[in-house]
Amino acid sequence: MVERNDIVAYLKSLQDSICAGLENEDGKAKFIEDNWTHETGGGGRSRVIQHGNVFEKGGVNFSAVEGDMPKFMAEKVNPNAKRFFATGVSLVIHPFSPMVPIVHMNVRYFETDTGESWFGGGIDLTPIYINKDQARFFHEKMKEACDAHHPEYYNKFKDWADHYFFNEHRKETRGVGGIFYDYLRPSDAASKEQLFAFMQEVGNTFLKAYLPIVAANKQMEFAPEQKNWQLIRRGRYVEFNLVYDRGTKFGLETGGRIESILMSLPEHASWIYNHQPAAGSEERKTLDLLVKGVDWGVGS
Amino acid sequence: MVERNDIVAYLKSLQDSICAGLENEDGKAKFIEDNWTHETGGGGRSRVIQHGNVFEKGGVNFSAVEGDMPKFMAEKVNPNAKRFFATGVSLVIHPFSPMVPIVHMNVRYFETDTGESWFGGGIDLTPIYINKDQARFFHEKMKEACDAHHPEYYNKFKDWADHYFFNEHRKETRGVGGIFYDYLRPSDAASKEQLFAFMQEVGNTFLKAYLPIVAANKQMEFAPEQKNWQLIRRGRYVEFNLVYDRGTKFGLETGGRIESILMSLPEHASWIYNHQPAAGSEERKTLDLLVKGVDWGVGS
Repeated sequence: MVERNDIVAYLKSLQDSICAGLENEDGKAKFIEDNWTHETGGGGRSRVIQHGNVFEKGGVNFSAVEGDMPKFMAEKVNPNAKRFFATGVSLVIHPFSPMVPIVHMNVRYFETDTGESWFGGGIDLTPIYINKDQARFFHEKMKEACDAHHPEYYNKFKDWADHYFFNEHRKETRGVGGIFYDYLRPSDAASKEQLFAFMQEVGNTFLKAYLPIVAANKQMEFAPEQKNWQLIRRGRYVEFNLVYDRGTKFGLETGGRIESILMSLPEHASWIYNHQPAAGSEERKTLDLLVKGVDWGVGS
Repeated sequence: MVERNDIVAYLKSLQDSICAGLENEDGKAKFIEDNWTHETGGGGRSRVIQHGNVFEKGGVNFSAVEGDMPKFMAEKVNPNAKRFFATGVSLVIHPFSPMVPIVHMNVRYFETDTGESWFGGGIDLTPIYINKDQARFFHEKMKEACDAHHPEYYNKFKDWADHYFFNEHRKETRGVGGIFYDYLRPSDAASKEQLFAFMQEVGNTFLKAYLPIVAANKQMEFAPEQKNWQLIRRGRYVEFNLVYDRGTKFGLETGGRIESILMSLPEHASWIYNHQPAAGSEERKTLDLLVKGVDWGVGS
């Protein structure tokens, strides 16, 4: 039987391996670590990388906290639940170069004092300039991870990501998507062991899906206008994280450590009034692909 | 009897006079205007100033829209209300220099199809470096405007501003506050005429409270570290506007024009992991004053 501690141990090792992989790709910067405790129980291990060769700012956060059940969550799983335990690894990486996509991953596990448990997670890629071949490669990795566990996971979770990583007020996806899932509860269809195995599959897929894209693009040259476009896209990223992101909202509502929650925000971002990329420009081509339901060519 | 059209006419003229005053102080940039229509009725006149001598980015927005009553608002005023009419002027100005404070003003009027009407508004100042004399001057202007209408308005609305313009997750006010009020409904204590007169007093106070501070500070020199501190404080401004601001939420929820709603965001903002100003620094002194309940020395 999978115990809470097994999941915690895996997540800590995942944080270690992801940080090592990113440091290796960066070649210069090292993660710094801050340990913290949560006011209502538990705590976390935040790791931040800044001003590297490749990565301008990024965080890879492990946490395992206990607290009072937020109302919105109790309504979803059990109105009688009063306390929760939550553990997860969450990361957002903002590269310096507009040629290297922003990336996000989160895998998480919850328990309530009333005996419910569930898993959630996702990975999504936010290129400043969409390269369709790289988007397809990224989705192939997502599909491989999903297909190893359930034939319907990829389609379902790719669609979920398209709807979740979406700035409703802009009618724009924040990038090329990936996968997103939540409230996966042990059932006859998937045991807790199987759901934990899927969590590990997703966690272990992250570096395989992201690092080849970083390696391919990190030496590319770029112009100041391309940097400006990156700052605008980062502004959209800030909008998503502050207005919609479940992890951010959950953290803010349950008294999480603010610097760890908001380390997902970029070092620099920009808002230009009514910015409209010129017809036919690379920026316009990317914007035209920031819609739900794009078929990246990996099959279903 | 005050009619909807009287309020609309005043608000349009207020937008004109504020834009003229800001342009005059800037000495270089002119507002550009975009007219737009709201999908469920009405529309607005957005004016944006960019890249001036003093003002890097700012917007002064007039709107008069109709739409379906948002649930949170119906719960406050009348559960049977199905439609609203809302008109107001809203502005946020982001100066280039960290020596010149960010400023915000909003005055607004609502009606429902069930006959309720109410006024709301506020003005608040966000210095990057707090000058206590200027904070006192600003609050004196707020107090004068309030005292002309009700002896309790200033204390009540100053306190309301301290609580409203507050980043709960940071436990920081966004600046030195000012005044904030909402759901002021015609009653025996204050007729609609009197509430409309107070709206005009607040609107007409804006330039008198802000321009002298701009004029005094706009030529001051500043260092790159001071510009960096400004970018960090602007990041907090973005956090407030996207997480808490009622106007922003209302606009996003009721399908407002997104570029007009988010013109309150600065051209550049920054997030530095775990930034802590040094003890004794000017930045630390400002941060220490970003708390509720500061007495700026204007009496009560």
